[in-house]
This record gives sequence, C-alpha cells and structure tokens, in this order.
Amino acid sequence: MPKIFKLNPFQFLVLLFLSLITAGAILLKLPFSTYHSISWIDSFFIATSAATVTGLVTVDPASSFTLFGKLVIMFLIQLGGLGIMSFAIFFIMLLGKKISIKERQIMKEALNQPSIGGVIRLVRNLIIFSIIIELTGSVILSFRFVPELGWTKGGFYSLFHSISAFNNAGFALWSNGLSDFVGDPIVNLAITFLIITGGIGFTVLSDIWDKRKYKKLTLHSKVMLVGTLVVNLVAIFTIYFLECHNVKTLGALSSTDKIWAAYFQGISPRTAGFNTIDMTKLEPSTALFTILLMFIGAGSTSTGGGIKLTTFFVILFAVVSLLRGNEDVVIGKRRLSHDKITRSLAISFFSIIFIFISLFILTITEKASFLSILFEIVSAFGTVGLSMGITSHLSLIGKFVIIVMMIFGKIGPISLVFFITKSKQKHFHYPDAKIFIG
Amino acid sequence: MPKIFKLNPFQFLVLLFLSLITAGAILLKLPFSTYHSISWIDSFFIATSAATVTGLVTVDPASSFTLFGKLVIMFLIQLGGLGIMSFAIFFIMLLGKKISIKERQIMKEALNQPSIGGVIRLVRNLIIFSIIIELTGSVILSFRFVPELGWTKGGFYSLFHSISAFNNAGFALWSNGLSDFVGDPIVNLAITFLIITGGIGFTVLSDIWDKRKYKKLTLHSKVMLVGTLVVNLVAIFTIYFLECHNVKTLGALSSTDKIWAAYFQGISPRTAGFNTIDMTKLEPSTALFTILLMFIGAGSTSTGGGIKLTTFFVILFAVVSLLRGNEDVVIGKRRLSHDKITRSLAISFFSIIFIFISLFILTITEKASFLSILFEIVSAFGTVGLSMGITSHLSLIGKFVIIVMMIFGKIGPISLVFFITKSKQKHFHYPDAKIFIG
Ligand SMILES: [K+]
Ligand SMILES: [K+]
Repeated sequence: MPKIFKLNPFQFLVLLFLSLITAGAILLKLPFSTYHSISWIDSFFIATSAATVTGLVTVDPASSFTLFGKLVIMFLIQLGGLGIMSFAIFFIMLLGKKISIKERQIMKEALNQPSIGGVIRLVRNLIIFSIIIELTGSVILSFRFVPELGWTKGGFYSLFHSISAFNNAGFALWSNGLSDFVGDPIVNLAITFLIITGGIGFTVLSDIWDKRKYKKLTLHSKVMLVGTLVVNLVAIFTIYFLECHNVKTLGALSSTDKIWAAYFQGISPRTAGFNTIDMTKLEPSTALFTILLMFIGAGSTSTGGGIKLTTFFVILFAVVSLLRGNEDVVIGKRRLSHDKITRSLAISFFSIIFIFISLFILTITEKASFLSILFEIVSAFGTVGLSMGITSHLSLIGKFVIIVMMIFGKIGPISLVFFITKSKQKHFHYPDAKIFIG
Repeated sequence: MPKIFKLNPFQFLVLLFLSLITAGAILLKLPFSTYHSISWIDSFFIATSAATVTGLVTVDPASSFTLFGKLVIMFLIQLGGLGIMSFAIFFIMLLGKKISIKERQIMKEALNQPSIGGVIRLVRNLIIFSIIIELTGSVILSFRFVPELGWTKGGFYSLFHSISAFNNAGFALWSNGLSDFVGDPIVNLAITFLIITGGIGFTVLSDIWDKRKYKKLTLHSKVMLVGTLVVNLVAIFTIYFLECHNVKTLGALSSTDKIWAAYFQGISPRTAGFNTIDMTKLEPSTALFTILLMFIGAGSTSTGGGIKLTTFFVILFAVVSLLRGNEDVVIGKRRLSHDKITRSLAISFFSIIFIFISLFILTITEKASFLSILFEIVSAFGTVGLSMGITSHLSLIGKFVIIVMMIFGKIGPISLVFFITKSKQKHFHYPDAKIFIG
C-alpha cells in the first residue's frame, strides 16, 4: 500500500485540505485569473482564506480577479466549506459505486460524527440541502442584484454571494463589503438566513429534517437552536447600544437602517464575516465584543470556526454551576460529563495560547494598533473574515501567521491535538503530584 | 454565638481584609494624612492598592501623603502582605495564650495549607523570617538611601522600600518609581532579592529552612525554585531583546545599565510592580509579554497575585503532554492528577472571564488606548502595580473596577468560588449529556 494510505483519516483530510489550498493558489496565480499580477503570498493568502471560508483579503477580490479568478474563489469556498471529501463521496454515490469502510471512516472524522452509522446518509443530505438552500438564496438575491447589474453579472453575483453566505465565507464582490445594502430588507434577510442555516451545523439541519418537531430533536440540536437565538439577540442589542451614537457607524443612519445594521452586525461576526458598516470605525468596546463573538464561532460540524457555540455554552454552564455551588453541571436535564467540561476548557485554553503567540509575533512585526492586530488574529481563528483594515498592510511574516491561523481555525484546535498525537503507550504510572494551585 | 462567627474561615478572612481596607481608607482620608485633600474614591483606591500589595496609584504617594499617611500605607502593605491573621496569631503566641482550633482552621485557610498540622509553626516562622529579611533589606538599602537623603528620611525610605519590595507591593516614594537607580547594583540586587524571597511563597521558604538540601525539598518547593529561575531568565532575555533598540527605554542606556534594567524589569512584573524604566514607552510586544508575566504572577501562599506560577506550569506541562500524545502529565517523576489539571484550567479560565468583563466595561468608560487598559486590568489582577500611565486618569467607574480587580486578584479566583459556593446537596443525578465539542 502506498505510504499516503497509512495516514489516519484525520491526517488524510488535512493533507487533502492543504492540497486544495495549494491547487487554488496556483490557479489564482495564473495570468488570466487576475487583472494585475499578484504575489505568491497573496495568492496563497486568498486561496487559504477561500478554502477555510474566512474572507480576509490582502488584495481586493472585486477589482483584482477576473471572472475565472472569481470562479476559482467560489469553488474553493464551496469545496472548503462543505468539505472536499463530502463531494468526493457524493460523486461516488452518483456513480452508483459502493463506499468503502475506509471512506466511511474518513467521512466520520470529516463530519465529526461519533460513529460511521448514518454517515453516508448525512453526506447525501448535506449536499442536497446545501444545493437547494444555495439556489434558493441565489434566486432571492437576484431580485436585488439583477435589476442593478444586469442578467449575467447580477446572476453571477447572486450565486457567488449566496454560496459565500451559506458557507459563511464572507467574501463579497464589493470593495466596501455589503455596506451599499445596509438598509435593504431583501439582502439583509437573505444573507442572514443563509449565514444562520450554514452556521448551525449539518447535524442540526439533518435532525430538523428527520424529526420536524422541536420536542423530538436531539439535545445538541436544541442547544444549538436556542443558543443561536440567544447569542444573536444579545449580540444585536449590545451592538445597537454600543454603536447607536457613533456617527461613523450606526449614528449617521436612519432609525430603520440603524436596526437593520445592528441586526446584520450582530449575526455576522460569529463566523460569516460580512459587514454592512465600516469595521475600522467601531468603538473599542464594540470591537472587543465582536472579538468575543468571533472567538465563540458557529456550531460544531458547521462551515464555521472558533471554539464553537456548544463549547462556549458548556463552559458558561460549568462556571455558573461552580458559582452556585452545584455539584453537577446540568444542561436541558442532562448532566455534562467531567470529561466534556475538561475538553471544552482545553479547547478554549489551547486556542487562547495559540492566539497569544500569534499576537506576540504580530506586535513585533506589524505597525498597526494592538486592538486591530488582536481583531485580525481572532478573525482568522474564527474563520470570520472581518477586519479593522490591516489585512492588505500586513508584512510577509504577518500574512504567513494569518494563513496558519486560518488553517488552524478551520481544522479546529482539538483536531490539531489529534493530528500531532503520537499515542505513546506507557506501562507504568508515576504517583500523583502534590502541588498547590491558586 | 454572634452571627459573624458563623461565617466559614474563608468568609471571615475576606471580611477581615475588607475591614482592613476600610480602616485604611478612613485613616488616609484624615486631614493630617495628606498635604492636599484627596477624594474618598482615591483614599479607598490607595488603601486597597496597599492592602492588596498592588501598587497602582491614582495620586502620587510621594507628594500627596504626609509621613503619617506614608506610615499608614506601610502598615497596610505589611498587614495585607503577610496577612492580618498571621499577626493576630503571632501576638496571641507572644502573650503565651493557647491558639484555638477555630483560629488554627482560619490560619489553615489563610496560608492555603492542606491541614491544620504545623500551621502555628508556619505562622511563627513566617513572621520571624519576614522581619529578619525586611530588616536586612533595610540595612542594605540604607547604604544607598542614607547618604543621599540623610538619616531620618533615608532610614524611613530604606524601611519603606524594603517592606514594599518583600511584600511585592511595588509602592515607591519616588514619582518615577526606581528609575533614578536603573544602573545601581545595590538597589537592583537588594530589591530583586526581596521580591524573589517574598514572591516564592512562605511554604517554600519554610521548607528550605527545615531541609537545607535541594534534594530533600518537597516537589512544590522544587517546582517553585526551578520555575522561578526559568521564568525570570526567559523574561530577562526577552525584555532585553525586545527593548534594546527602543531609545525611550533600554536603547538610551549604557550597555551595563541596559543589562541591569532588563534584569530588573524581567523579575519585577510577575507581582512586584517596581519599575526602573518608563512603562509608558514600552514596545507593544514588551507590554504584551509583561501582561503575560503579570497574569502568571508569583507562587502560591506568597504575597503576590495572578493565577500563580504552579498553575501556569501545570497547564504548560498538560499542553506539552497532550501535544506529545502522553497519557499522563508528569512533573518531576510525579503524575499530575486529572483534578489538578482541571482546577488549573478552571482558575485560569475564570480569571480570563473576569479580566474580559472588566476590559469590556473599561473600553466603554475610559478614553485610553486598548493596550494600556488591558495592561492596567491585568496589573490589578496580578496585584502587580505596573501601569502604562492611565491610573490617575481613570473615571470613577474605572477606579471602582480596578479596586474590585485588585481585591479579586489578592483573594484569588479559586477562593472566590469557595466564597460564593453554597454547597447544595443533590440526591439525584441527571444522565450524561451528549453534545459535540470542537
Ligand atoms: K467567514
Ligand atoms: K505589587
């Protein structure tokens, strides 16, 4: 057997993903992909940003890339967002071939499932759902974009932004993001609907499709649905409250547009990364709050990054239980296992360490403000794509660090641990250490 | 029995501590304590800063307080640093009275000991050691301060700075800290010696006193000794490397003074808070690195704050073990228990949440730069006392948040959990939750 097949499923997926990025970077470097030549680091940056569905850009996609280049970006978003392996499996299914145990095991890893049972059905649902939702989104957006841009450009823009929104990629073909549509109900509703359905995770969508009734849903689905609603509402109100007097953002808008903008900017930061207001003009408090939202991220098995909404809720519930002196951490009449809490803490802590190291490097190499650097790094970690305007001014090292951070954010902190793990066997245990803590 | 005695030992200690701060604030507000009248919030701020051995100041102690005011500050530092309870027990011993089980239990909590055995001996050693070391420090410092300031002022300054350094309080009676002595070997060596012995924790000092030989020391002592050495060396080299070309800090100094300044500034941030260079002129990278050192803090059962050096090492070893795929986390041929690792993660995470909330409030209320606000908050949390110059410009809410943070930093995050805990009993357990993480 060739050496490549000796990789474990997770390592294979990472290799596949890195190959996708490399292929994308080469395609984007082709002369007919761009209107003006871009550097290798920029083509790698854009390919990584697209494949990790982040949306940070060192060159403006709208004015730099030709239609071919934009198509490459769209395919990278689609393959990276839904997972290249899902498409592979889907085509094997279409061809009527049998899917091997090995392939099922890889899909189990890719979709973060506890067992290989039902994995193939999930893949089929995932692809079909995605195509239906993305096409629906395109049709709705075309009501706004076609009258403005004509059939060809308007049609392509509708498809591109629908795919970009559903995969939470945050790539927009306007240089100021979606700021032109700050008060537009169609764009606001269509894009946020795509963001939320894409960001909630396919296991949840699949569960809703199967059960149809809230009461019958799995605990995971319930937590995700209620959690998404609560976090989005808190985010919308907080951003409205913090920014309503800032004349450079919400302050200058009409009262209806203010609400639309807060609504959009409350939903977008957890992983989508679109913006309808100028992020460089945010109050520091709003920037910090957005950093928290980007750190939390979307749902497990979704296209988004971050520590994930469930991880955040596990920690939140654990802290509240601790403070209330409850022995067990209970969520929806189910006890959270000690192991789950430790894992959540480890994921978060590991992420914070990674963010801290990147932050330290970038404070040395970059001339930007500390807050904007922190914002950029957490945006990459959460594969969000919002920026306080420093992406195109990053140094070579800065771009490299952000590329690594986007990949880390997409693959997930816990996965990195699996990836490196050598799984050494130990036959004897040292006695317990006695060390004071706190 | 009066209601106050129904408090658990920990709650009693917190109440005692808050009473000390209040008494201190009232004394500092007296007309003959200050040259010019100060506000209540400032007298509370200074009293909290002294009793928590932090060293952040909203008014300049040197020019604001009379000799009486300075003596109040010195006593607050001494009582807050070594623990008001230790002194109480010590005087009971001096009077030849018997120390009750109740009092021993309170001391056990106060000194963070696993059992009440040996607690009284530890108190005696603690007080005697402290007085000997502080007096030795005073004598050494007087060689520098007496020739410069005369016998009375020089003598008082020697005692004040010796107590301030040993208790890691960071209060200095010069407006620019110890910057006048940036290249002075006597001041540098005496102050860092006092900082390190005070910061390593009394259990370690007591252990060294009893055993005399490194090999016989407890694991905790060994980790603290090696850990302090390693962290200090890393800090000195990092700060030298980051600042040596900054003309506003190390860059302008002679090559010998450069080394002295890096040496001092590497040792001081983990809890002492003295400075010999201008902290407002630090590179952002150095400021961030200093924030990490302040967050880590000193040793358990020391006068310092932060998550504590051992907590940091437990997490560091756990992360390294995880990445290397080792099943057990081993430190000095002893296995770290799962519970210890979880507690370390919980302490750190709880602290980060607390810091984040304060940061969010202060980004709304203060006009200062984001980095300087973060620096100020972590400085208060670590009871460090370094500042990028915003303390005296803080708003009323800002001062209040920093006061709360200093108390939280001194009492310790894990203690807060104990304090609030109602210890509810649960007779039935919910089944385990199935939620995806990561
Ligand atoms: K994104
Ligand atoms: K201090």
